[in-house]
Amino acid sequence: MESLRVALGERSYPIHIGAGVLDDRALYAPHLRSAQAAIVTNEVVGPLFLGRARKALEAAGARVTEIVLPDGEQTKAWPSLERIFDALLAARCGRDALVVALGGGVVGDLAGFAAAVYQRGVDYLQVPTTLLAQVDSSVGGKTAINHPRGKNMIGAFHQPRAVIADVSALSTLPDRELRAGLAEVIKHGIALDSAFVAWLEANIEKLVRREAAALVHAVRRCCELKAAVVSADEREAGERALLNFGHTFGHAIEAASGYGNWLHGEAVAAGMVMASELSQRLGLVAKGDVERVRSLLKRAGLPVSGPQVPAARLVELMAVDKKNVRGAARFVILEAVGRAALKEGIDAGLVSEAIAAAA
Amino acid sequence: MESLRVALGERSYPIHIGAGVLDDRALYAPHLRSAQAAIVTNEVVGPLFLGRARKALEAAGARVTEIVLPDGEQTKAWPSLERIFDALLAARCGRDALVVALGGGVVGDLAGFAAAVYQRGVDYLQVPTTLLAQVDSSVGGKTAINHPRGKNMIGAFHQPRAVIADVSALSTLPDRELRAGLAEVIKHGIALDSAFVAWLEANIEKLVRREAAALVHAVRRCCELKAAVVSADEREAGERALLNFGHTFGHAIEAASGYGNWLHGEAVAAGMVMASELSQRLGLVAKGDVERVRSLLKRAGLPVSGPQVPAARLVELMAVDKKNVRGAARFVILEAVGRAALKEGIDAGLVSEAIAAAA
Repeated sequence: MESLRVALGERSYPIHIGAGVLDDRALYAPHLRSAQAAIVTNEVVGPLFLGRARKALEAAGARVTEIVLPDGEQTKAWPSLERIFDALLAARCGRDALVVALGGGVVGDLAGFAAAVYQRGVDYLQVPTTLLAQVDSSVGGKTAINHPRGKNMIGAFHQPRAVIADVSALSTLPDRELRAGLAEVIKHGIALDSAFVAWLEANIEKLVRREAAALVHAVRRCCELKAAVVSADEREAGERALLNFGHTFGHAIEAASGYGNWLHGEAVAAGMVMASELSQRLGLVAKGDVERVRSLLKRAGLPVSGPQVPAARLVELMAVDKKNVRGAARFVILEAVGRAALKEGIDAGLVSEAIAAAA
Repeated sequence: MESLRVALGERSYPIHIGAGVLDDRALYAPHLRSAQAAIVTNEVVGPLFLGRARKALEAAGARVTEIVLPDGEQTKAWPSLERIFDALLAARCGRDALVVALGGGVVGDLAGFAAAVYQRGVDYLQVPTTLLAQVDSSVGGKTAINHPRGKNMIGAFHQPRAVIADVSALSTLPDRELRAGLAEVIKHGIALDSAFVAWLEANIEKLVRREAAALVHAVRRCCELKAAVVSADEREAGERALLNFGHTFGHAIEAASGYGNWLHGEAVAAGMVMASELSQRLGLVAKGDVERVRSLLKRAGLPVSGPQVPAARLVELMAVDKKNVRGAARFVILEAVGRAALKEGIDAGLVSEAIAAAA
C-alpha cells in the first residue's frame, strides 16, 4: 500500500492506494467518531464490493446502514439525496456519523454532497471503485448533483476524511469505463506534468491491459498532482481550474448529447482535443503538440472528435457553464504539453473553429 | 447607523443596524462582484420592501432578478430551493452573482442555503425584516431547509458577506412575530449576559411598544453577543451551542405541534422555561431564577408552558434532534441567569419532570 496526503490544514486527509485496501479495517477505524456508519453505493458496485466494505467497517466497530441506489448519471439528483437523508434519519445518524461513498464518480459526488449538507455536514470517506474516481473525482472535495440545465450545478466543497483506492477493484471495470478513466489520467499529464506525459506515451498500452504496477503508478501520480493543486487552491479560485482542462468543451458535449450517452471521460477526451486545437489557433502550441494529444488519446481507445451537433450549439451550452466569470467564458488552454493556463476573452470564432477541427 | 463586525478571518463580515439602512446603496455596492443580483423574498415581505431593496441594488449597479416565494415555514423545503436554482440559472447567474435574502428567518435560512450550494457556493447578503432574524438567524451563517423528520436537518454553514438590519422594518411586523423575536432577545441575555437581563427587566415594555432606541440597543447587543460566540466557535463544536438554550425543548415542541402552529420563538420561550426547570432540578439554579425567566417571558407576552402533548412524546422527539452526540441528548442548561453551559448524560426522568413543570 502507498499513502500520500492532501495538505489542507485541519481538513488534510490521506489517500491510500493499493490492492486489497478495501478490506483493511485499520483504514476505516480512525474515522469512526461514533458506531454509526452508512455505506452509499449502487446496484452495480454493491454486489461486487459492498459485503467487503461492510465487513471491514464492522471489524472496525461500526453499525452499518446500507443505501443502494440505481446505477447511472441520472442518479445524481435530488431524489437520490432524499433517499440518503431518509435512510440516515431512519438509522438515527447524528452529526458524528460516518458516510462511506463506495463506487464511481456519481456515487462519490452524490454521497459527498449528502454528507456536506446532512445536519450541516458530517464526515465521509471516498472508496472509489473506478479509475476515473480513483484519479480524479474522489480527491479534492468537490461534491454535487446535476440540474436539468447543467452538470454539477448544485453542490459543495466538502473534503473527505480519507480516500481508500483499491486498484484490484479495477479488474471488474468494463473496458469503456476504464478508457474513460484513462482520459482523466492523460489530462493530469497534459495539463500539469510533461514527464508524466512521456511516461504515458511509453506505457499507455500497459494501462489499457490493466497491468497492476502501471495502474498503481498512474493512480499515485495523478493523486500527487491533484493533491498539490488542491492544496494550493482548495476553492478553485485559480490553479485548481487547470484540472478542468478539456472540461468546458466536455461539459457542453455531455449536455448536447444528453447526460449519460457520453461517459464523462469520453467527453473530456474530445474536449481536450478541442482545447488543444484552440491553443494552437491562439499560437501557443504547435500542430505537432495537438497531434501528440490526439495520438495518446487514440491509443487509449478514446474519442478524439465531438458529437454530431453544430459548433454553435456547443458554444451556447458553454455560455451557461459554471466556470464563467462575469459572463465571459474562461478557457483552460495549453502553453505547452504538460503546462495548462487560464485565459479569458477568447474570440468566439476561434472557439467555433477549434470545435470544427475536432468534428 | 451602527456597525459591528463578526470576526471570522477571511469570512469576516459587517452587521449594519439602523433605521432606513435598507435603502442605502453604499451598503450593497461593496458586495457586487458582478452586475448579477437576485433578491429572494416572500409574498408578505415583497410588497413592503422588495421595491426599496431593488432600487438600492440598482443604484449600486446591479441587474436584479426577483424570486418571490410563498410565506410560511413550509416554504423552507426542497421545492423552494428548486425555484431559486431555476431562476438563478434562467438569469444566467454565475459564481460571482450575489443573492440577497430579504425577509425573516425562513427566507434567510432558505436563500442562504441556496447560496451555499448554487454552483458550490455564491455570495449572499442577509437583509432581515423580522426581529427574530435581526437578532439571531441572520447572523452566524447557519442555513438550512427542513425535513419531514426534523427541522433544519439539511443545511450548511455559509457566512453572509454582510447583514443589513433595518429596525424601521419592524413597524409592520405583526404583534405575535415581534413577541417571538423578543424570545430570542431574552435568550441572548439569559444564556450569555446577566447585565443584559437586568436591562431587559427594566425595558421589556419599551420593546413590546417598539420604541426605536430600545430596539436598536437590543438588536445591537444581541448581535454583539452572537458575533462573539460565533467568532469563537464557527462550527458549533462548543460555545456556539449555548445559543441553543431552550432550543432542544423548543424544536420538540414545534415537531410535536406540526411546524408553523407554534412560532419558533414561542416554542423557544416555553423551551427556555423547561430548560430552566431542568437546571433547577439539577441543583444549578434556584427556584427564584426560574421565576425570573418565566416572569420576563410573560411580560413579553410569550408562552411559558408547552403544548398539550405527553412529556414522553417530547422526550422521544428530542432523541432524534440533531444536537445529539453519540446518541445521548446534550442539553444547554443554566449555571446562573446569564450563564448557560452544556451538559450530557442527564437523567431522562428529570427531563420529563422539567417538561411537566412547564405544562
